[in-house]
Amino acid sequence: MNNYSKVETGQLNKLDQYKFAPEGLPAPIVGKLFLGDLVGLTSMDVSLNKDAPNTGMHFFHSHRNNEELYIFLKGNGEMMIDEDRFTVTEGSIVKVNPHAQRAWWNTGNEDLYYVVIQAQANGLKAAGLNDADLGEEKVPWI
Amino acid sequence: MNNYSKVETGQLNKLDQYKFAPEGLPAPIVGKLFLGDLVGLTSMDVSLNKDAPNTGMHFFHSHRNNEELYIFLKGNGEMMIDEDRFTVTEGSIVKVNPHAQRAWWNTGNEDLYYVVIQAQANGLKAAGLNDADLGEEKVPWI
Repeated sequence: MNNYSKVETGQLNKLDQYKFAPEGLPAPIVGKLFLGDLVGLTSMDVSLNKDAPNTGMHFFHSHRNNEELYIFLKGNGEMMIDEDRFTVTEGSIVKVNPHAQRAWWNTGNEDLYYVVIQAQANGLKAAGLNDADLGEEKVPWI
Repeated sequence: MNNYSKVETGQLNKLDQYKFAPEGLPAPIVGKLFLGDLVGLTSMDVSLNKDAPNTGMHFFHSHRNNEELYIFLKGNGEMMIDEDRFTVTEGSIVKVNPHAQRAWWNTGNEDLYYVVIQAQANGLKAAGLNDADLGEEKVPWI
């Protein structure tokens, strides 16, 4: 059995070919692709996102146990977390704690691209070199 | 206390202003920025990455407990996981299980951009709507 899995989701500017529309959602979300089921994630779920101008999250939501991280890649938008409202752009990184209410919007003239990751708050035991072992084989590209 | 934290990491094409060079690493890695300490992540750690052509990960490594997800955003490269060697490009998504040996390289003529996320394997209890509650306030942009 492979120790990995891989999918090709295609060019980011074609993300609006994907739609997230599960039962119970107030409105379908165009341009949102969840990766968890595609590659069999067990530690997190992740979505790739493209919002057209003047679209975004039409409703607030909070999480029960999962911390979320928003990585904005391109475009200009606004985000609200509880009472706070602020702008986001390329390179904006926002960590949101479980119970906060959150929503966001593409307030710019171009598409807004971002990645959202959720994982169990306080679930990380060690990271980086503290969870890693170096291999002995040489990489083939040098 | 805020229910979130936010940092601005800047334009992705300037990621090579950042360097990951902790003690114990065989070689410093230019263009790798870890976000965990910057925003206080407790569930995962995440790095933003830009590799110049003919650079990449000079050594293999494995993880003990963390699953990793690689999201390739732009450019062309190769990845090796254990004995397998394959190409990656915009939209390639690779999940790697803890004990697999992994390394990668920018084999193209342009910079290679990717996000790497690590979190405790099997640590996710519920995700998406199963971990979420909808808010009652209306979003301000509609």
